Amino acid sequence: MKFMSFVWQDQVQYGVLYNETTILNLRVLDGFPPSLLEGIRAGEAFTGRVREALKKPEATLDGALVPLHEVSCLPPIPNPVRNMLCVGKNYREHAIEMGSAEDIPEHIIVFTKATTTVNAHEAPVDSHRTVTRELDYEGELAVVIGKEGKQIAKENALSHVFGYTILNDITARDLQRKHKQYFIGKSLDGSCPVGPWIVDHSEIENPNALDIVTKVNGEVRQQSNTSRFIFPVEEIISELSKGMTLLPGDIIATGTPAGVGNGFHPPRFLNPGDEVEITVEKVGTLRNTIK
Amino acid sequence: MKFMSFVWQDQVQYGVLYNETTILNLRVLDGFPPSLLEGIRAGEAFTGRVREALKKPEATLDGALVPLHEVSCLPPIPNPVRNMLCVGKNYREHAIEMGSAEDIPEHIIVFTKATTTVNAHEAPVDSHRTVTRELDYEGELAVVIGKEGKQIAKENALSHVFGYTILNDITARDLQRKHKQYFIGKSLDGSCPVGPWIVDHSEIENPNALDIVTKVNGEVRQQSNTSRFIFPVEEIISELSKGMTLLPGDIIATGTPAGVGNGFHPPRFLNPGDEVEITVEKVGTLRNTIK
Repeated sequence: MKFMSFVWQDQVQYGVLYNETTILNLRVLDGFPPSLLEGIRAGEAFTGRVREALKKPEATLDGALVPLHEVSCLPPIPNPVRNMLCVGKNYREHAIEMGSAEDIPEHIIVFTKATTTVNAHEAPVDSHRTVTRELDYEGELAVVIGKEGKQIAKENALSHVFGYTILNDITARDLQRKHKQYFIGKSLDGSCPVGPWIVDHSEIENPNALDIVTKVNGEVRQQSNTSRFIFPVEEIISELSKGMTLLPGDIIATGTPAGVGNGFHPPRFLNPGDEVEITVEKVGTLRNTIK
Repeated sequence: MKFMSFVWQDQVQYGVLYNETTILNLRVLDGFPPSLLEGIRAGEAFTGRVREALKKPEATLDGALVPLHEVSCLPPIPNPVRNMLCVGKNYREHAIEMGSAEDIPEHIIVFTKATTTVNAHEAPVDSHRTVTRELDYEGELAVVIGKEGKQIAKENALSHVFGYTILNDITARDLQRKHKQYFIGKSLDGSCPVGPWIVDHSEIENPNALDIVTKVNGEVRQQSNTSRFIFPVEEIISELSKGMTLLPGDIIATGTPAGVGNGFHPPRFLNPGDEVEITVEKVGTLRNTIK
């Protein structure tokens, strides 16, 4: 199941892919919550009902089936419950390209992106030319928490996951350096495209074994596999929840592989007109253009 | 005007101090929004109506006047709109006690605390003994944003402020060091007492000229004045909003003066039973005990 939020006929809707070209609009079906976030909070009761609805024949779903090509995507959770949680330097080669082997972390590094960074699949991304000349891409697998939890054991961690999506942790490298802590350089408005959808956890048995590719204007820049995580998803969830309660709807970006613009000599930062496309195996493709 | 959220008769209420011992419960008055956050979002229309209500004689406010000593404080905004924004090393002497003169920042340093850290005046603060042995206090003046804004000029910055409150940026120093970026060490559940109220901006002409004192078990540990800010409030707001939209309800902690437990030799961290009391001139006193 692939869950999306979208605009159709000038209304905010959410739904689930019915087939490759059609969305089942859950927003208009009786007995479903008003938003995907509320659905995530309802847990298995929600996904169970979605599964039932998807079994219904097309003829009985009249009025709730929407052609995929007619909608504008929204971020799956258009109003995030709080800042996006982001793991830094979670691939060895990326840690090295950002500094040296000394930058390979022994312990998980976590920063956040402001809620106002969140952006949709195929929405334009502001180049923020007045504040940065070093806008960079970071293709990442993101985890969406389904079940609240604290001190979650590694063995239990995946049971707290609602699903998986793709996130572009767009970063102003000059601001990231200048302000020491990453937050400012990571929090430009619209600098966090997420989507196009959240894939139900049941469809990804092992999130630590997924190919991930980032292309800029069709050229492969990042190509890796989440098996190269320093801290796999279970450990991220366990570490983050040691002293902090994780909430339904929390979005955790798992870190980016080597090949960011900053890692090239000379660096290859993003310019207006550039198209960034991130593909994660079993999840899909997230595409945005810098404006 | 001092705006509070509180529990009274098992209900979440919010209001404004009517006099030193009485709260005017705005939650039960006709025509007021359901929460302080909604009031903040309504701006001058809200504060204007509050001013009118405060002029009414006691006899006409029957049922809306609540004895201050009968309520349990809540954080002024019990459900923050997003992570608290925190300025790091904004007093020269504190930057030095945390490292050396080289740590005095040239540019503003910003990190965040998770929404789940928010805690009330006089509520217990968990010692989190299973994850830290180095729990530390940080007394701070906090700014509450009233009016949304981006690329706010310094000259204009204070017009975006709803009011001022006090914040204890409780920090696990061992986790702060271990995880490099501050977020994890700053985001233990309940590690951000805020309150007891928000003082209307009209009562503080210059936020950069306020005495601030932190006591632990009655002993003065931090004693300074916000005139010693490296980055004054106007500059913090202007810098933060350069690439990121500030939202009504955003809470910005302005940094802590010298005298944190980590600055002593040997360090003097918090232990269960310790009482931390932070007083900011013209704002009030925020008190919490470690449990």
